[in-house]
Amino acid sequence: MTADRSSGPALAVVGATGAVGSVLLPILSQRADVWGDIRLIASARSAGRVLAVRGEEAEVLALTEDAFEGFGPGDVVIFLTPPEISAQWAPVVTTRGAVAVDQSAAFREDPEVPLVVPEVNAHAVRIRPRGIVAGPDCVTAAMIAAVGALHAEYALADLGVSSYQAASAAGRAGSEALRRQLSLVAGTDLGEKPGDVRRAVGEDTGPFAGPLALNVLPWSGELREGGWSSHELAVRAETRRILELPDLPVAVTCVQVPVLAGHSLTVRARFENRVDAAHAREILEGAPGVVLVDDPAAGEFPTPADAAGTDPAWVGRVRASLDDDHALEFFVCADNLRKGAALNATQISELIAGESA
Amino acid sequence: MTADRSSGPALAVVGATGAVGSVLLPILSQRADVWGDIRLIASARSAGRVLAVRGEEAEVLALTEDAFEGFGPGDVVIFLTPPEISAQWAPVVTTRGAVAVDQSAAFREDPEVPLVVPEVNAHAVRIRPRGIVAGPDCVTAAMIAAVGALHAEYALADLGVSSYQAASAAGRAGSEALRRQLSLVAGTDLGEKPGDVRRAVGEDTGPFAGPLALNVLPWSGELREGGWSSHELAVRAETRRILELPDLPVAVTCVQVPVLAGHSLTVRARFENRVDAAHAREILEGAPGVVLVDDPAAGEFPTPADAAGTDPAWVGRVRASLDDDHALEFFVCADNLRKGAALNATQISELIAGESA
Ligand SMILES: NC(=O)c1ccc[n+]([C@@H]2O[C@H](COP(=O)([O-])OP(=O)(O)OC[C@H]3O[C@@H](n4cnc5c(N)ncnc54)[C@H](OP(=O)(O)O)[C@@H]3O)[C@@H](O)[C@H]2O)c1
Ligand SMILES: NC(=O)c1ccc[n+]([C@@H]2O[C@H](COP(=O)([O-])OP(=O)(O)OC[C@H]3O[C@@H](n4cnc5c(N)ncnc54)[C@H](OP(=O)(O)O)[C@@H]3O)[C@@H](O)[C@H]2O)c1
Repeated sequence: MTADRSSGPALAVVGATGAVGSVLLPILSQRADVWGDIRLIASARSAGRVLAVRGEEAEVLALTEDAFEGFGPGDVVIFLTPPEISAQWAPVVTTRGAVAVDQSAAFREDPEVPLVVPEVNAHAVRIRPRGIVAGPDCVTAAMIAAVGALHAEYALADLGVSSYQAASAAGRAGSEALRRQLSLVAGTDLGEKPGDVRRAVGEDTGPFAGPLALNVLPWSGELREGGWSSHELAVRAETRRILELPDLPVAVTCVQVPVLAGHSLTVRARFENRVDAAHAREILEGAPGVVLVDDPAAGEFPTPADAAGTDPAWVGRVRASLDDDHALEFFVCADNLRKGAALNATQISELIAGESA
Repeated sequence: MTADRSSGPALAVVGATGAVGSVLLPILSQRADVWGDIRLIASARSAGRVLAVRGEEAEVLALTEDAFEGFGPGDVVIFLTPPEISAQWAPVVTTRGAVAVDQSAAFREDPEVPLVVPEVNAHAVRIRPRGIVAGPDCVTAAMIAAVGALHAEYALADLGVSSYQAASAAGRAGSEALRRQLSLVAGTDLGEKPGDVRRAVGEDTGPFAGPLALNVLPWSGELREGGWSSHELAVRAETRRILELPDLPVAVTCVQVPVLAGHSLTVRARFENRVDAAHAREILEGAPGVVLVDDPAAGEFPTPADAAGTDPAWVGRVRASLDDDHALEFFVCADNLRKGAALNATQISELIAGESA
């Protein structure tokens, strides 16, 4: 097998069968087609499955050296895999001269791997000493375009974030666990008495640290020093990297909610400069990748149900602090599978394809 | 009908049939019995219904002047009714010399009505020029004991709150709407595509500003200046009143989540003094009305499913800011029907009963 580069660079999608992969394939079909060959790869479990991309059927290959045969300089491999798989296989791809675009956590803190959200720091994609480009965590991705646009105007001084995270951030296993739990509690009179939800859901809470149906869980990731979770520290570190503000104070609390798709965040941002809510709304309206929905009297505010399946970050509830004329509050929703992963990886890959065009 | 005061002051519960009322009656049965007569009152729709309290059956009376016959000085009437009903009927009760304890929003901003959470400002109950005592909103109630205890040690300088509010805060209508919506989406493959949830739930979203199943809604209350909601401003005003910090900077974002019972909040608190997370945990462990559950590695953090049906505010995820040695983050859950309403009203009423004892 050799990659056909006559109509553009070749693209491989590793993890094509996962929650993010299943969203990425239709995105490839919808966007301007810059690719020659597109190759779909997953674990040996999925080898031989047939998936549709760009209106054609493609057979899923098992992840082996052979799957990348013919790949070389100018080609791109997107990794939508667990971090340990990305860590193992991205170097295999770069050895061939192809660029690896990874949406896992494997390389996000590697100083030699740029961490890119094209709306904010597209320029960073070109400096990639290891031939690898990383995309951010889905919580960072949901807010960074809005925060970045406000930062460009007002100079960010302090950021506080509380998340309302969807179950699909934990992949197919996350969505399935929430659906199963909802079936157990819906249609019952459970949910208002002590222990109700835990008893109904049972021990098998899937990838979550407790029952998620009719509940919220203030935990995702692993425990780090000071009681912080790895996920909270990651959002802090990534925000600092992408905005190139290495000392920015950032406080994050990550909370999982019983939503299938679409992350929501409350954001409090303090700036070096005075803010004005009306002007902030104008900035957000003009920001790439951001759509403003901010007319609560008319029922217009972002919700994850409305953000699910769409590309932008939806921003609303923009308010100036009543006590601090340097601070803004807002609410943002974005599809964790799209802007949080599949769309961002596609956008990065298109930037790389554009370099050789 | 005359109230039998031989074994203590008489108590009337107006709104005994509602979401809060249904939780208050069992609370009365469980606590030390300080009451003589207990009279249950609701709308004419409920007159004649028979409810159990203190192990005996009691017939619900319609809310009329006659329902308070025999009530006078030393007696207490708890209002668990819509604010307009409380506003109309509390003065009727106080004219007789009885004390009105109101858990609606009717009097919370009245400077002549003390706003009381017994764990924090029990002393305020005694100064009640109008003969009325108010309890706080359920979001304020969830956090104020923890925040108050930390304030006593460190002197609060700034408060930021994001809520994760349960549907039962909107009364029986709220719980019923969420249960109905969950039945429509559970067991389907809906929830990850644009418009899915809105289509499944339809136009009838009950007391909410949109569909709540598989969704979160960053809105509760009415629109006020600057894009703030009346609910957000109420939490700010109540926190200032109860802590007696009239200039405290407070930023609140109120968000409804698909949980039946139990409010959750992320809290960021900045203090005049330096903080220490270990010492803060000790303070919280000793704070009345607060229970600390803070061992995330062992899966121990507060959740609304565990807080539902219990009395205290459950606090966890206590972390010192990584960037500001005067700031703490934490997460708190409390049953909105209990500490947020029924329990608080009972505690206030017991303080008043104790005055004449
Ligand atoms: N879900 C989100 O919202 C989101 C957002 C941002 C970033 N991410 C990151 O993106 C990555 C994928 O997430 P996901 O949610 O799509 O997870 P997922 O639903 O569990 O899918 C995992 C994918 O990786 C493949 N895979 C697993 N083990 C493999 C192996 N040993 N060899 C080859 N392929 C293997 C799976 O193939 P099989 O089907 O053959 O098992 C599947 O295609 C993760 O690193 C995740 O942290 C996810
Ligand atoms: N739910 C919470 O978490 C919570 C927390 C803090 C404060 N509160 C406040 O507590 C109050 C009650 O809330 P809820 O959640 O229990 O509401 P609910 O479930 O709707 O119950 C309302 C109660 O008020 C009675 N009522 C309504 N209209 C009446 C009228 N015209 N005359 C006499 N009684 C009337 C109802 O009687 P019928 O059954 O006869 O209609 C019922 O007992 C509200 O002000 C609410 O804001 C609620």
